[in-house]
Amino acid sequence: MDNRAIGVCDSGLGGLTAVKEIMRRFPNESIIYFGDTGRVPYGTRSNETVVKYARQDINFLLSFDIKAVVVACGTASSIALPEIGRGFPVPVVGVVEPGARAAARISKKGRVAVIATPGTIRSGAYERALKAIAPEIEVMSIACPLFVPLVEAGRWRRGDIVIETVAGEYLAPVKEFAPDAVILGCTHYPLLSGVISDVLGPDVTLIDVGAQAAEELLSLITPCGEGSRIINRYFVSDNVYNFTHIADMFLEKHIDGHVEKIDIEAY
Amino acid sequence: MDNRAIGVCDSGLGGLTAVKEIMRRFPNESIIYFGDTGRVPYGTRSNETVVKYARQDINFLLSFDIKAVVVACGTASSIALPEIGRGFPVPVVGVVEPGARAAARISKKGRVAVIATPGTIRSGAYERALKAIAPEIEVMSIACPLFVPLVEAGRWRRGDIVIETVAGEYLAPVKEFAPDAVILGCTHYPLLSGVISDVLGPDVTLIDVGAQAAEELLSLITPCGEGSRIINRYFVSDNVYNFTHIADMFLEKHIDGHVEKIDIEAY
Repeated sequence: MDNRAIGVCDSGLGGLTAVKEIMRRFPNESIIYFGDTGRVPYGTRSNETVVKYARQDINFLLSFDIKAVVVACGTASSIALPEIGRGFPVPVVGVVEPGARAAARISKKGRVAVIATPGTIRSGAYERALKAIAPEIEVMSIACPLFVPLVEAGRWRRGDIVIETVAGEYLAPVKEFAPDAVILGCTHYPLLSGVISDVLGPDVTLIDVGAQAAEELLSLITPCGEGSRIINRYFVSDNVYNFTHIADMFLEKHIDGHVEKIDIEAY
Repeated sequence: MDNRAIGVCDSGLGGLTAVKEIMRRFPNESIIYFGDTGRVPYGTRSNETVVKYARQDINFLLSFDIKAVVVACGTASSIALPEIGRGFPVPVVGVVEPGARAAARISKKGRVAVIATPGTIRSGAYERALKAIAPEIEVMSIACPLFVPLVEAGRWRRGDIVIETVAGEYLAPVKEFAPDAVILGCTHYPLLSGVISDVLGPDVTLIDVGAQAAEELLSLITPCGEGSRIINRYFVSDNVYNFTHIADMFLEKHIDGHVEKIDIEAY
């Protein structure tokens, strides 16, 4: 057994959807979460900036006694990990490879769509990962820049004309492309599953990349001993109030650990 | 005459609406613009962070030979300038005081609404400035967190159901409050004038705070000599492509100067 914690970082709050999936699969593990709320969003920034930020995020998590890092941010996973993902003392898992592997496994028609932030789409990371696994797969990639602000504004529910209109517009070319698997390439997007399914129809499988990353952790880490004490800690780079306020929406429960603000520029 | 340039800073692109107004009033002046696109948005960040960023933005502009600084960012003006606005070697003009003075002058009913980012509203800066000028004025303040991302996604035109729905919801309490002057407390908002007017009706005057700040410059600076060479320079803290791409929308013309990326953390 290995009683060290699992580190999870994200550009902000979305990574908590991955934390939720990790907690579901590993009920005895402690989590150290860092949400870079002072510098969110990553999705619209340059590659250089995203690489710098991701390196600092991982370094911060490594200042704790952890056994693995999950980079739950789609933008950081796709832009930064190919460059900086190796050479750390513990396994570092992004969301791109697990998401791509799941899509290749699930798609029977060999048609996969990727929806994500502009930065992730521009990086072409999911497309490259899919082609590396199964070169015959046809891939369509669509950037959805308004999904993150709309989710953070609480506008992710069925029946909201704003998110439904925006989703309808973004997803019209996806519907036409007719994939049977769609990678939700940003950890905010699982909240939009209902709205997205309404547009794309019930035959399209939506892939939660945070859940897939959690799944891959199963083979990479030695779990904590049963009955070991769970201590979850949450860190942010901007004010704590904004975080706790929205965190429950992503975790689907009350946040269960201390939340603290840190200076990420120091890492 | 004073041939030094005018410095303008903003958290991102919105400040270009103020640049447009300055250019209209001062056709012979050179502008040095800094848009903090690598750390935008300020409106959702903590006061501490906004103060730090604003100080760096002004320091960067002061590394040039300028005769005044316009802080075109509503959030930086309202949160940071009360703390750091004095003691610079050139006049530093925010958008809060000029906006508040215009509202107090224009409102006949003594009822003024302020719409802005969450950070600006939380600061209470417009409210304080209005009360200092005219204590009897009744003020309502409403945060509109989705206006900036929607404008940046190009969704600011009349007839777009998304912006019209969001504006309708945000402005419903304003309509009920029935002001005759509304301060557009964020430099992105002038693009939404049409949509906002449709909700509030033609009897409500919308106050463009960037234009008011430009107006106040008239009394603070000695203009360039006529026929002096105009050299506009634009600096950003993230990639240049994203900037030039959207800048024209705010300037209402093609960007007319060199655009360069800088490391704002070094200031």
